[in-house]
Formats: sequence, C-alpha cells, structure tokens
Amino acid sequence: MSRPRAAIVVTGSELVRGDRNDLNGPFYAREALRLGLEPTRIAIVGDQPDDLQAAIEQGLEADVLLVSGGLGPTHDDRTVELVAAAVGRGLVLNASLEHEIGEVSRTFATRMRRPYTDFEPGVRKQATIPDGAISLGLAGTAPGLVIDTGSCVVVVLPGPPSELQRLWPRALETEPIRSVLAGIVVPSRRVLRVYGVSESAVARALDDAGGDGDGVEVTICARDFELHVDIVAEPGAEAAADALISRLRAPLVESVFSEDEISIEELVLDACRRRGLTLATAESCTGGMVAARLTSVPGSSDVFRGGVVAYANEIKESELDVPADALAAHGAVSAEVAAAMAHGVRRRIEVDVAVAVTGVAGPDGGTPEKPIGLVFLHVVGPDGELAQQFELPRDRDWVRSRATVAALHLLRRLLTPAS
Amino acid sequence: MSRPRAAIVVTGSELVRGDRNDLNGPFYAREALRLGLEPTRIAIVGDQPDDLQAAIEQGLEADVLLVSGGLGPTHDDRTVELVAAAVGRGLVLNASLEHEIGEVSRTFATRMRRPYTDFEPGVRKQATIPDGAISLGLAGTAPGLVIDTGSCVVVVLPGPPSELQRLWPRALETEPIRSVLAGIVVPSRRVLRVYGVSESAVARALDDAGGDGDGVEVTICARDFELHVDIVAEPGAEAAADALISRLRAPLVESVFSEDEISIEELVLDACRRRGLTLATAESCTGGMVAARLTSVPGSSDVFRGGVVAYANEIKESELDVPADALAAHGAVSAEVAAAMAHGVRRRIEVDVAVAVTGVAGPDGGTPEKPIGLVFLHVVGPDGELAQQFELPRDRDWVRSRATVAALHLLRRLLTPAS
Repeated sequence: MSRPRAAIVVTGSELVRGDRNDLNGPFYAREALRLGLEPTRIAIVGDQPDDLQAAIEQGLEADVLLVSGGLGPTHDDRTVELVAAAVGRGLVLNASLEHEIGEVSRTFATRMRRPYTDFEPGVRKQATIPDGAISLGLAGTAPGLVIDTGSCVVVVLPGPPSELQRLWPRALETEPIRSVLAGIVVPSRRVLRVYGVSESAVARALDDAGGDGDGVEVTICARDFELHVDIVAEPGAEAAADALISRLRAPLVESVFSEDEISIEELVLDACRRRGLTLATAESCTGGMVAARLTSVPGSSDVFRGGVVAYANEIKESELDVPADALAAHGAVSAEVAAAMAHGVRRRIEVDVAVAVTGVAGPDGGTPEKPIGLVFLHVVGPDGELAQQFELPRDRDWVRSRATVAALHLLRRLLTPAS
Repeated sequence: MSRPRAAIVVTGSELVRGDRNDLNGPFYAREALRLGLEPTRIAIVGDQPDDLQAAIEQGLEADVLLVSGGLGPTHDDRTVELVAAAVGRGLVLNASLEHEIGEVSRTFATRMRRPYTDFEPGVRKQATIPDGAISLGLAGTAPGLVIDTGSCVVVVLPGPPSELQRLWPRALETEPIRSVLAGIVVPSRRVLRVYGVSESAVARALDDAGGDGDGVEVTICARDFELHVDIVAEPGAEAAADALISRLRAPLVESVFSEDEISIEELVLDACRRRGLTLATAESCTGGMVAARLTSVPGSSDVFRGGVVAYANEIKESELDVPADALAAHGAVSAEVAAAMAHGVRRRIEVDVAVAVTGVAGPDGGTPEKPIGLVFLHVVGPDGELAQQFELPRDRDWVRSRATVAALHLLRRLLTPAS
C-alpha cells in the first residue's frame, strides 16, 4: 500500500552550519508517521535563496510539504516569498494579520523603548502571505500558514520548536490537511524494548523468527544503550505482526524489559510504587545522573527520597558511612565500596531500595588495575541485592551515560525478577 | 568571497522517521565550516532508492559532497551503488578490502556461532566499490570512500557516528580533499557568550554597534538558556570584527561571561581552582542535574567534593540540617530553605562554596502561592552569598534545565564579581 508522501524543509543558517541540532525535522517526521504519511526527506538549508528555493521546489513533488523557519520580520527571512513563487501565487497583505502582529509588536516596542515605526515594515512583511493561504494565527509574531496547491498541501510554521509545536495542531484542523488524511488507515505500531543483548543478536532473532515483510515492517534502533524494536503493521497484517512478536520474544525473553513506550526510569519508579517502596541513590562517577534521570519523571517524589553524590572519598565516608578500611583495602572503585555505598545511603536516607555507582570515567585516573571504563554497580532492596561490574573503555560522557543506564536496569532487575 | 560549497547527504530510515536525531549532518557541517567550506544543505533520506538517488544527484552540484550511512552488508544499503551510478562509474570488487572485511566477519561469525558462508555475500558487497574510488580503510565492516568526479569530491562514510568520526580524518588526508582545501583561507572566528539578556536585546546592541557586513558575519544563537554570538571574519576583516566586538561588548559587559568556547561549568570549576576553593551542591527540584553538569568536566574532582539530592523534606532536614521550623514556616520552596540548604551542605561536606536549588518543577504540586516554575537559588562562598528567584511557568524539563543553568551562572557571579 502506498501512503501519501511527506517532504520536510527546515531552514536556519545555524542549523545548516551544525551550530544547533535541528528538532523540527524529527518532530514533523514523527508526526507524519503517526498520521500515516510516509516521511521521505528532511532537507536542512540556510538562508541563501537559491538553496531554499531548490529545497521547496523539490518538496512540492511530495503530497504534503512541511516547512519550518524563515518567517521573521527581516529581509533574510524569505520562506513566505519563496513558497509563494514556487506555487505560483502572488503575495497579499492580510489586514487582520497586520492588526494582530501590530498589537504584539507595539507591546514589544514599548518594552524595548523603541518607536513603533521601527517595527512597521517588519509587521507588514510578516502580515503579507500568499494569495489563498490559510492563516493559522500567530506564535510570536509569525503566522503559521497552510497552502493547497492542488497536488501538494504546504504547511509553513515558525522555526522556534515551541512555536512550531503550538501551531501544528491547528494545521491538522484545516480542510486541506484533513482531506489528505481522510483516506489513510493508520498502520498499527507495536514496540519491544530490549536491554543487554547486541543489535546483531536481535537482528538474528528477527531472521530466525522469519523476518519482516507482507505488511509488517520491523526497525531495530539502538538508543541510549537500549534496543528499541519497532513493529509497524499495515491494516490486515496485525495478526502476522503479533505472531512475529511472539516468535521474536521467545529467544529474547530475559532481555525484553518493556512492550510499551515507557522509559526505564518510569518502570523503576512504577515497580517501587506498586510495592510501596522508597528509593535513594549513591553516586560517584555518574555525579548525580541517576538521580537526575529518576527525578525527570513527574510524580517521582512519592518514591524517590534523595541521594548523595559522593565524589571525594571523604564524602563516601562521612555521608555514606563507607568504612575507611574498605576504601584503603579495595579502593573507591571496587565492588566492596559500591556495596557499602548502597547500604550506607539506604540506612542514612531510610529507604527500602538503594542503588550505588562507582567507576573510573576518565580521561584521567585510569591505572592498569583500575582502567578507564571500569564501573561497579550495586543495588539493594527488601528481597536481596545484586551487583554488577563492567569495563568498557570509552570517553567520559559515554562511560557515565552507560553506567547510568546500567544502574537503572539493575534496579529494575532487582524489583521485577523474571517470573 | 565565495567559498567551495559542501552538500551533506545522510541516509537512514530511523533518521528520516524522526526515531533518532541525526548527529552526522551537524558534525559534517561543523567540520566543513571549520575548514572554510560553505555548508549549504543537509538532506536526510531513508532507504528508498529514488529518494537517495535524488539527494546524491543534487549533492553532486556542490564542490564537496559528504555522505553518511547505507554502507551495510544487506540489500537495502544502497549508498555505494547509487553513488557509483550518479558519478558514472562501474563497481569493482576490491580484493584487499574483501580480505580485510572477510577477517572481521570471520571473527564475528565465530562469536555468533554461524557459518562464515552466511556472511560471504555481504563481505563481497561491502568490498565492491566504485571504479577509481580511494578506500579509507574500515570502521566496523564498512570502508570509507573518497571519489573525485572532476567537479565534485565525494566522501562516503558509515552511519554510526563513532565510525564516521574515526574515518573522517583519513578523508582529509586524501589528495582530492587536500586539493579542494588548498586554496582556502579559513575565516577567523570570535565568540561572545552572553547570559541574562534577551536575544532581541543582543540583536539591538548589534544594530547599535553598526551591524555586520563587509566581511564580518554575526550569528546570534540561543543555546541552553545562553546566547552564543559567533563573529566570523573573512581574511582582511579581522580589525573590523574586533572593532565591532568592542562596540558590542560595551552595552552587554555585565552579561558577557565568556569570550571563548568554554562552558559555564568549566568556568565555575576554573574560578574555584584558581583560588583553591572546593565546591558542593544541594539540590531539590533539579534532582542532581547541577552536580551532573559539574562532574561532566574532566578533572572536576579536584574542586567538586560532592552533593546531596534532598528531594523529600525529611532529607533536607536529616542530610542538610535545614531547620524543621524553616520548612514549616516558609515551605520547601522558599528563599529561606534555599539558603539553609546551601549553608547546610557547605558545613556537612566541608567545602568553601555551595549552591542550592529548590523549586516547583511541575506538572503537579503548583499552588497559587507557589506556582509551577517558581525556583529559589542560593550560593555561598568565602566572600559572601547571593540569592536569586524566578518564576517561569513551563514544562518540567524546561524548569529543571533553566534552574540548572541559572545555578551555574549564579555560582560564577559569586566567584568572579564584575571588576
């Protein structure tokens, strides 16, 4: 089955120079996919008219063209005039938009203590839109626009991601977009999240399960040290997708931690919450990253009580009651100290479940016995405790992120033992 | 002056679907810019041959085409064959590459307990390259390639960012790339980093300073609640750039915190290190994010001693000695408790400088008196203390990130008072 194609054009000189990573392209793409469109291309261009024009013209070959950026008041914001030219429309001053943008700009002018006349040309520019375009109203001073060319529906939204995301739902309510979407049966999506096995092992399990095809499409995506297996089933192929998932799950059962979009930190908090358990962290090399991940979840405060970042050895002793002997005998990066940190924070913060991380993040501090990338984890709860160590020599960010994810997964293993 | 243009083509179905944010496009773009090329477009496409072919053909119009991804052993990895077709070259099996990839695959086959014959077709495919292409050797099992068409130098590298970045320096050493770069005088770059003023205030200061032009190009980029002002001077315009910077700095002097690429956490650690001061954190709503930022810097352990994440009120009392009275009278989110947290952690962890953060991150827990987005910061050091509060109702991630950055900047203000 062939789906309507969506092309995406993102403009911004800081984006094409790599100064900032684009968020709008991936947002548009995920939205397109969710709605049953097929995203085919994300083009990121600067503010050179030729480059932007070429990208727009190419984008018009798709059924839907999603554009972001270049809607500001200055002369180098050229998206509207280039879209108008590409679709063969004239530009007209929209009086009600002029009024609306004028209001916003007057307030702004007052705040900046500048005469409104400085802003007038910009207001007129931003209120001038292609003939026949549907205005979606303002985010900031730029209006979102929808233009139906007959063969392509063009959506134009401002570049700041929060503004784009605020106007996007309004674009979906316009008649041209509704009519593109009307005929689409959205494919259903299933998810397996896997941890602790390699991408090639999952690819092999998929092969052994018969692979995808016949209306079922499987994507394996490595993300934040987990593997996210995405199974998309066209209408009619749902049973085949479910059968494939059963065959795929069997050899991976110990590694599948979620069949949902729920993150590992949410799973850990949910597991605690279900059993009425409280949680604390004791961190050395991760320096607060485990606590930050847990507290990123709304409502985490009913489970997570607190944590200690014990970077210096003295703090491991004074705040976590790690015995000086253990530090002297085994060193701060050791299974013994990880265990002592976990037990220490559990007693000190009076919680049911505790996790501790200690390791050598590098780039300095590695030794032949304790090389960079050596990390010890320890978790303890009402039913027992688990320890883990690994040694993966990579850069500092990688080691810290890897250790953070591993700590969360070790907590989950402690809290939800395989049945 | 017109610079050689660089087009970028990134392929990967998970990227064009927004499942993963592309890192290779921005990497290529920053590298192109650093070398004096002009990045004009980043095209992200999936594995549909038509889309990839169109992107490659369009990219060949540039002077340099940088391609990533689609080099794997399977039939849907089509980059090499499509590049060959687009530049009018045949494909040839490279015997020494076949040998090299074969070695890697044999090891892999043994580890996976599969017969090597399963891998042979993939090995042959990956060792088959366009006639006349320069092989850059392997990262994983995919070779990097450089092809000189006469009008465009094409660089093809594997999609995993670490592999791409490992092979990239080798591409720079090839004769075709060296000859493109030979004629370029790289523009010089200056940076101002500004905190605590709006983007429009900086834009206005730039206007008042005479604006850019005449070989000086200024970009203002909002990034992580800071503004990074990038000033690029073409050869001969260096003095004009310096003069512009002086005029721009004057009205912003209190807000400019760096004229370098150094991050705020590095500045804080450097300021402590210079004076031999130690540092600790006490965090509530940021849940460890301030500590995580500080410890992200290599060598931070000589300054940063540790921190307490005091999420529950009891932990603020037991681990930070916040008086129960203060919590009862003012609530956990108050200037008084922020101050008590900072003093508490300073005493407990025995450091010279401490920072505390408490706030309502939401989405729940807001009240009319203590709304979502209300944050109190407190820093204390040998020369005194500073307090700050703000109230910016946004989503949880935003409030936490904003509070983290504000805490680091408040530390810097305490440590390096304006002279």
